Amino acid sequence: MFMRIDHIGIACRDLEEKIAFFSETFELTVVAREVNEEQGVKEAMLHIADGEGGGSYIQLLEPLSDDSPVGKFLAKRGEGVHHVAFGVRDVTQTMDKIHQKGVRLLDERPRHGSMGSQIAFLHPKDVGGMLTELVQAARPEQTEKNVHM
Amino acid sequence: MFMRIDHIGIACRDLEEKIAFFSETFELTVVAREVNEEQGVKEAMLHIADGEGGGSYIQLLEPLSDDSPVGKFLAKRGEGVHHVAFGVRDVTQTMDKIHQKGVRLLDERPRHGSMGSQIAFLHPKDVGGMLTELVQAARPEQTEKNVHM
Repeated sequence: MFMRIDHIGIACRDLEEKIAFFSETFELTVVAREVNEEQGVKEAMLHIADGEGGGSYIQLLEPLSDDSPVGKFLAKRGEGVHHVAFGVRDVTQTMDKIHQKGVRLLDERPRHGSMGSQIAFLHPKDVGGMLTELVQAARPEQTEKNVHM
Repeated sequence: MFMRIDHIGIACRDLEEKIAFFSETFELTVVAREVNEEQGVKEAMLHIADGEGGGSYIQLLEPLSDDSPVGKFLAKRGEGVHHVAFGVRDVTQTMDKIHQKGVRLLDERPRHGSMGSQIAFLHPKDVGGMLTELVQAARPEQTEKNVHM
């Protein structure tokens, strides 16, 4: 079901500062920067490894406003791990399968994630307190169209 | 520097219950169970993928006592992501390199991690609020000796 750990989403207050820190300290390369209005974040993906069906990344997230989900997270918990994402082959099929096992979905249908991916979130209370994301990576031709460096 | 996301460490109150949930819901296989007295936890590793120099796992952690680090974490934050671990080729060299860049280490020297690995923790305040672990996986012959199923 899970092909790889796709990314660790880290909530931060200053995206540029954290990009500089993570890329310099851990010698990671920024492969995408995006603004996701729907989710209320600006973000960067730092590449760690390639895996089955996609890569593994650190995702840095700065909220666009205090009342966005990441903004509220920062106010309550401070900077740190916001969610963990796992790569799947087909996000819709996986959502159905997991929902049938009694896990609540936060999304009724997949939405747009980083780098042209299709994503869905699972309810953290049903997954050991971990906000869990399913990621179906874009096919290469989609990635080219959708990633804005 | 980082070859893979080695594991997500998840703090939980009932290891057996969480092993059952994660293995059944996400079709993951438990590859190791251990008690680590030094860290005050009993734990299980659930395999997600193989990567460069080692695998990727979900690590479930139940504290052996309330005053252990994971016990204190549970009291303060509840169940959820406790730390994130990245695979490195040589943990001692990586510790030195990262420390020279100004990141505080929680360990002066590597200690014993899951499945015969050598590990070290970085100060979460210096790494965007994320408790960060470096993992040098055991060589296969070490793994055989040290992993208790």
